[in-house]
This record gives sequence, C-alpha cells and structure tokens, in this order.
Amino acid sequence: ATIDLNCDMGESFGAWTMGDDASVLAHVSSVNIACGFHAGDPDTMRRTVDLAARANVAIGAHVSLPDLQGFGRREMRVSTDETYAMTLYQIGALAGFAHAAGARLHHVKPHGALYNMAARDAALADAIARAVRDFDPALILVGLAGSELPRAGERARLAVAHEAFADRRYESDGSLTPRREAGAVIEHIDAAVAQALAIVRDGIVTTRQGGTLALHADTICVHGDRTDAALFARRLREALDAAKVLITPLAMKPSPPSPAMGERVG
Amino acid sequence: ATIDLNCDMGESFGAWTMGDDASVLAHVSSVNIACGFHAGDPDTMRRTVDLAARANVAIGAHVSLPDLQGFGRREMRVSTDETYAMTLYQIGALAGFAHAAGARLHHVKPHGALYNMAARDAALADAIARAVRDFDPALILVGLAGSELPRAGERARLAVAHEAFADRRYESDGSLTPRREAGAVIEHIDAAVAQALAIVRDGIVTTRQGGTLALHADTICVHGDRTDAALFARRLREALDAAKVLITPLAMKPSPPSPAMGERVG
Amino acid sequence: ATIDLNCDMGESFGAWTMGDDASVLAHVSSVNIACGFHAGDPDTMRRTVDLAARANVAIGAHVSLPDLQGFGRREMRVSTDETYAMTLYQIGALAGFAHAAGARLHHVKPHGALYNMAARDAALADAIARAVRDFDPALILVGLAGSELPRAGERARLAVAHEAFADRRYESDGSLTPRREAGAVIEHIDAAVAQALAIVRDGIVTTRQGGTLALHADTICVHGDRTDAALFARRLREALDAAKVLITPLAMKPSPPSPAMGERVG
Amino acid sequence: ATIDLNCDMGESFGAWTMGDDASVLAHVSSVNIACGFHAGDPDTMRRTVDLAARANVAIGAHVSLPDLQGFGRREMRVSTDETYAMTLYQIGALAGFAHAAGARLHHVKPHGALYNMAARDAALADAIARAVRDFDPALILVGLAGSELPRAGERARLAVAHEAFADRRYESDGSLTPRREAGAVIEHIDAAVAQALAIVRDGIVTTRQGGTLALHADTICVHGDRTDAALFARRLREALDAAKVLITPLAMKPSPPSPAMGERVG
Repeated sequence: ATIDLNCDMGESFGAWTMGDDASVLAHVSSVNIACGFHAGDPDTMRRTVDLAARANVAIGAHVSLPDLQGFGRREMRVSTDETYAMTLYQIGALAGFAHAAGARLHHVKPHGALYNMAARDAALADAIARAVRDFDPALILVGLAGSELPRAGERARLAVAHEAFADRRYESDGSLTPRREAGAVIEHIDAAVAQALAIVRDGIVTTRQGGTLALHADTICVHGDRTDAALFARRLREALDAAKVLITPLAMKPSPPSPAMGERVG
Repeated sequence: ATIDLNCDMGESFGAWTMGDDASVLAHVSSVNIACGFHAGDPDTMRRTVDLAARANVAIGAHVSLPDLQGFGRREMRVSTDETYAMTLYQIGALAGFAHAAGARLHHVKPHGALYNMAARDAALADAIARAVRDFDPALILVGLAGSELPRAGERARLAVAHEAFADRRYESDGSLTPRREAGAVIEHIDAAVAQALAIVRDGIVTTRQGGTLALHADTICVHGDRTDAALFARRLREALDAAKVLITPLAMKPSPPSPAMGERVG
Repeated sequence: ATIDLNCDMGESFGAWTMGDDASVLAHVSSVNIACGFHAGDPDTMRRTVDLAARANVAIGAHVSLPDLQGFGRREMRVSTDETYAMTLYQIGALAGFAHAAGARLHHVKPHGALYNMAARDAALADAIARAVRDFDPALILVGLAGSELPRAGERARLAVAHEAFADRRYESDGSLTPRREAGAVIEHIDAAVAQALAIVRDGIVTTRQGGTLALHADTICVHGDRTDAALFARRLREALDAAKVLITPLAMKPSPPSPAMGERVG
Repeated sequence: ATIDLNCDMGESFGAWTMGDDASVLAHVSSVNIACGFHAGDPDTMRRTVDLAARANVAIGAHVSLPDLQGFGRREMRVSTDETYAMTLYQIGALAGFAHAAGARLHHVKPHGALYNMAARDAALADAIARAVRDFDPALILVGLAGSELPRAGERARLAVAHEAFADRRYESDGSLTPRREAGAVIEHIDAAVAQALAIVRDGIVTTRQGGTLALHADTICVHGDRTDAALFARRLREALDAAKVLITPLAMKPSPPSPAMGERVG
C-alpha cells in the first residue's frame, strides 16, 4: 500500500511565527503552503517554498478565504465568482514562487472554512475546481474524503485526492467534528497514529458516535500547528513504515500534450 | 516612428470603482493591471484581465507596495527581500488570470511610491528586476525613462522600456514633479498632448524650471484616473496618428528556447 | 407625528470615494458613520465627523464586520466574543473623533451583514447591545424594526430605535428582500417616498408578496449610495413636511447621573 | 528616586501569539497596549486591557502606523493629517476597552517606526500630540528621551514622559542604534539591568561609540518580545528595589476641571 502524508506549512505572518516547518518537513511527502489570505506574507511564502523545494516534497497551494485575523477559519458567504477569483489569485501567487525556486506546483487544497464549505457546497466546490483547472489541468485537487470537493474535481476532469485526518474526530456522516466541540482534535499521539493506520490499511475509521465508517484516503494530513507536530509526524511515519506502507506524493495524471503557459488555446 | 501607449487599469476595489477602463481601453496598446496591493481585488483583476484580453492589448502587472488605504502612493521602507517577494507574488497572481483568459503576461511596471523609489534606488530596482526575471525572463520591465529601474532591468538581462508621461510635469533632473507640488499634473489636455508629441517626435520635454530636457521614451502613460481619461486618450491617439506615429505594444525580446514553466532547470 | 431620517455616511476609503455626503446631510437628522471595518479610513472618519458636527445632525457609529473588500455585506461566522470586541472597538474609534470635534456619539447601528445577522440572531444581538451599553448606556441602539436587535437593546436597558427603509422591499415576515433578489431595491423615487409615508403615517408597508404588514418605525434610512441620494433625501423630506411629520433626531433617554468616563464604578 | 517601568503588550494577532503578557505584567507599573494597527485584534485588546485593569497597572495606547505585516516597524511617508487621524482612531478604540473594563486610559506611546519618526520630525510629533490632547488633555505623552516628541507634547501642554531603554544601545546623539545594526539590542540581562540602573540613578548612559551621555528618563521600557522578558523584568525590578528606587506609574497632571467627554467646549 502507498499513502501521501501532507502537512500545512508557511503559516507564519510577518513578525509572528507558527509551526516548526523545517522539523515536520523531514517526515512528509507533500506540503500545502499558505498563500497570504489566512497566513503567509510574500516573504514567508518565498522562504517556505524554497525550503520545500530543497526537501523535494510535493508543493501545493493552501488557498483560503481572505481572513488573516480569523486564520481563514470563519465561514464567509462568498459568491462562486469571488471563490473562483480568490482561488486563481492564490494559486498564481504561489506558483510564481515555486517556479522561481525551480520547482512546480503539484496540488491545491482549500484551507479551514473554505475547505469545510467546499466539502458541503457543490457550487462552491465547482468554482474552486474550475480555478484549478483554468490554471493548470495537471494539478491535483485535494479535499475531504468522500465530499463534494473531490466530486467537483472529477466534474472538471482533474485528478483528485481524498484526504483523511489522523488527529481529527469524525462524525457518522463522514464530516469532521467541528473544532468548537470537545474532542474534535485527537490530542494523544498513539490514538491519532492508530486512527491513521486504520484508515490507510483497513479503510475504516471509528466515529465520535462509536460506529465504524468506511473511509478511503489518498493522503493523510499531519497538522503542523500541534506543539508536538514534528514528533507526531515522525511517529506516524515510523508506524506506516512498520506496516509496510510506502509514503509517497500523490501521482499526477499523465498530462496531455499541452500548450505552454500563456499561449492562447485554439 | 512608433510608440506604445499604456494605461493603468483595474484600480477599483470591492464596492468602490475608479476609472473608466472600458472607454480608455479602445485607445491604448498596453495596460498595467493592479494586483491587489494598492487596488484591485481578485474579482476585479479577473474582469479587467478578461476585458484587456478581448481588446487584444498587451497585459502588464502593475505591482505595488502593500497599502490599499494610501493607494500605493506612500513610500515605505521595505527591504530588498520584501521587495523581491512582493513583486513575485503580484506577478504570479496576475499571470494566473492572464493564463486563464488565454492571454499571457507581457510586462511589469511598478506603481506609485514603488515606481518612484525604484527610479532612485538601485538596490530596490535590482530586487524588482530579479523578481521579474525569475518569473519569466521574456517579460519587459517598464520604468521611469532614464532612471535606475531600466538600468536594473538591463543588469538582469531583461528587455526594458523607458516610460514618459504626457500629463506629469518634469523636473530638470528628469524626475517627475511630486504630486504634492502645484502644477505636478498637467490638467489641460492640449498641453499634455503637446508634451507627449514633443517627447515622441523630438525626444525632448520642457521642465518645470523652463529648460529643455532630452528624453527618450518607449511608452507614454495615459492616466486612467483623470475624469477625462477617455477623451484624453482619444485626443492623444489622434494627435499621434496625425503625426504618423504608429501606436503599438512594446516588442518582447525573442525568447530563447526555454523550459516550460515549472520544470526544474539544469 | 415625528420621525428621524438617517443616512449612512463616510463610506469612502483612501483614494476611493462613495456617496455625496455633503449634499445628503442637508436633508437628514441623523447620520451613521463608517468606522474603518467596511469603509472609512481614519482620515475620512475625521472629515465626516467634522462635517456632521457642523451640520448639527446626530452622529452614530455604523459598526461592521471586518471586510473592506466585501463592504461588510458578506456574512461571516463570528463568535459573540468577537462581535462584542469589534463593536466596542469601532464605537470607541468613532467616539474619539466625535469628542475631538466637540460633539458626542448619539447612537450605534450595525451595517450590512452584521445588521442582518443581528436582526435574526439573539445571541449576536446581545453581544452588540452589551458593547454599546458598556461604552455608554445613554447611546441609542438602532436596528431593523421588530427584529432581534431592538429586543436585545431592551434586554440591555438601552434606548432602542426601530428602523424602516424607504427604498428596500419587505418580505411578509418583516425581513428585507435580500439584495441579490430582483426588486430588492425600490429604484423609483416616488415609490420609495410613498413607502416611507405609509410607514410613518399609517404604520404599514406593502410586502413583496402583496400583503400589508404593520410596521412601527422610529427612523427611516435614506441610502447614501444611490446615485440620486441627495434628490431622494430632499423629496422624502418635502413629502414628510407636506404631511406635517416633524423630522427630528431620536431622543436619548434621560441619562442617570453617571460617573465620568474612565472612573471605576463601585 | 522613582521610576516607571513600562512594557509593550497585547501584541498577539488572531491565531498568532507574541510575548508572555501575564508573566511580565507582575513586574511593571505601566503597559502600552497595541491598538490593531501593528498588532492586536479587538478580541486581543479586550483581553489585554482586562488583564492590565485587574493587575492595576497604568494603561496606555501603543499607537502605530497601519502595517500588520511589518509589525509597524517600516517607516511610511504619512502626512500630518493622516498621523493625527490614525492616532486619534487608535486612542479612541483602546479607550473604549479601558472604559468597559472600569479603568481609564493613562498615557499614549507611539510604536516602532512611528516612534522613531516622531522622535526626529517635529511636525509629525505635533500631529500626534494634538490627537492626544484633543482626545483627553490629561493623558501623558510618552516618547524617546530628549527627542522631538516630548517637545511636541509640551507645546500641546500635555504632561510628557521621557523614555529610556534598558536593552537598546544608544548612539552618541541620543538616538537608538537601529535594529538592523549588530548590537542594537543588549541581549545580556546583566548588561541591560546595569544600563537601566545607570540611567535611573545617575542619569547617564554609555553609547555605542564608548562615550557617556547624560540621559534623563521618567520611564524605562521592558521589551515584552524578548524570550526572557519575564525574567528580565523581574531582575530589573529586583535591582531597582535593591537600589531603593521606587517603581511607580507616571503621575498625571492635576486635571483642570474639565467638561465631561462629548460636551462641546465654549
């Protein structure tokens, strides 16, 4: 079996730091880098992309609602046009840094409230998928496993990845227990590692309600804002290694022969 | 003789509109589109790029200091690293919209205070030029005629364009009379058109001090925030037509065979 | 009969202008001034407060969600703690300008999405009412007629004002027809003036569904962002004059003898 | 002898934390609280003001240029009108929280680049002093010892406080060694405590150039963003105690009988 381990990165802003990106980076195969809307000023983006490019992990754009103060975690009623445009803006901004670092953009994953809204709302999910496709149809769209976002990606003929969480509790409908609920985050590393192994090996997860849910995942998220993020990532990697699960980035679809960026099509 | 006519565009923001882009667009060969730092939210950028792509004018990124409230006109003491990163961020963001519209980015021009700072400060100008080159060495860097910015572009082996202004007064050292000075803007259309003609045909401009200054220009800026911008652009175009000056976009250098965007070089 | 006519003001931002405040000001008894969250930078606030103080109209804080790009019209999922704090912040900021102008703050009215959310959500409405009361219990809280916000104001023992709209369509439940619906704004001045008169004199409004709704209003809103705002305000004023309705600011409750601002209570 | 010990506080923003306010608070007599322009969202302001009010320290507004990304440390060319308005805005916003907490605002101190600009530029310093006076003439204006800002305060008939730094190096002209220079911050606690003692007891400081400078200080700043800020504050307090220096807030001038806030004067 194979799995991708991904981590959110570049979530510092100006004088404020968050996470220990360099330590976590050694243990994951993909990173999602903040694009300035919930975190990540241009300088932080450049440094994070350079770090990721040197570590040879797959680089993704972690696109968000425009809400620095709320860290992109407050739902906003945005139109599909606004969603399309803000997604395209952030992808372009990050891709520029990737290109300057001699790397290329590999995937796009919405962050926080946008992630949750796109999991439920097909029209919003379609707007995100169209922005990804219009930027580069070879990009992989990452979303909550089994939700509206991967479905929208498939409608846009994108490669999609179903994401599961080691350290977030699941509801019986496959959604994540909201962060405001007690027990939403699985603090104990052993329990989170066990949940990840059950998902990757057996395709199942135990819900908050106590039932068992079938859950297919292409990628597992390692939260970089845990205080023990590096240890957690290392423990998860060791457990997957022991279980003979190969940790490797998501595979991009074979690209059709495509025009170079910027050339008019047709 | 030939000349490029360029206009700043997409300077609305959210519920606030500025300029009459559609009217001016008919009279220019190039546009510089705001990238969200001094004006231009993502939705405005998408609509402006689409408008420009349909009008078949050359599309440029109008990169700025991060200052919506000051419209990018207040100088800020930014480091060269910050300048490099903010320039690359904005170019990438705009290029994404151009690409999605089936167009390509053609040039980069700093806005407002960043434009003036880059005209004087070689280190800042170098940071901008490096960001442009690292994004795409085929882009043209536009700056104040005879200033540090075109020189930095040449050091970075970019094609550069020297810009002159029809409706801004010049000092005897070739700098623009600061906007806070009386007479900085030439309000009268006939006088501004006459200044543009003198620059384009004769390579000279009369300074505020009354002297004559040699001034080579590759492109003339038509300010889109004049209330009479469309009329002004039309009058300028007619005068240049009558003088047998061909209005045409800046020529990009023949590109070397280059790797597709995103591929690692070497 | 008496009525207050209020208008939203100070909705320019930096280089962008909105509305024609000086013209409308002559026709209203109260103004609600943007506090920097949906519009109104500090300089605009100072000038708008000065204008209002000289015109001798009642000055209110027009508090909003933090969303310049969306002009405060996009609903955001904010907590009650965040709502309390952002309301208090904006009231304080505006009160400082009022005080410096030799005037005093008279009322508080939420703007846009916050106004609509506070009309429906009692907990959010309570957070706003507590912020108003904690700043100054003599302030009047203005909200949608018959909605949760005036009820919350009463729970906080504030004087409240029920607001109705001349140029917004009503649903049969007393809510406003959302702006995204056709016909949400009554464009025709005669029709809008007629609706205002029906509300003020007869306490009724005709809904979008065609029924008649009882509607008590203490204040009528004149939208300052209409292109014909000044004409509309004048026509409304003339119609009310002709109907012998006295236009006058909302009456503040007689203040209890209160400690000076800043002294610790008890 | 007596001295005030002040500390900058409330410099977290949204999901990002900075400093260990609760620990430092026990050792100082005054705090300067960020007002949302360089740090400090409304919720953080409310919590920090509540913390300070309960600790019974003097509460000041730490007003800044509008630059979250640069933490208020990048100089911007702002006009005196802009400076007046942004200062008044921030004072008002913070005073609202102080009032709601049953406390009162005691002083105003500019932050970062605004502090340095106001130390050099008399016109800018005057704009700040006028804003403070127009809000409340009983407030104390805190600025760099011997610089333009205390002079401007005196011109505005405000009580002023001359501030010195325990852990910043001085140039021979009495200015602070810029942060970009090596040795600008005195990292070693013993050396910083010794510098503070020399200033408080003897009125002298040793400059970077090695000379001795006379320096009168009313208040000593303890930087809250040092990783060892709490230890440093405790050690400084102990050294001052041992030297029989009484640590106490700045004394406000006896207020003239003044009209209540909001009443028109004259």
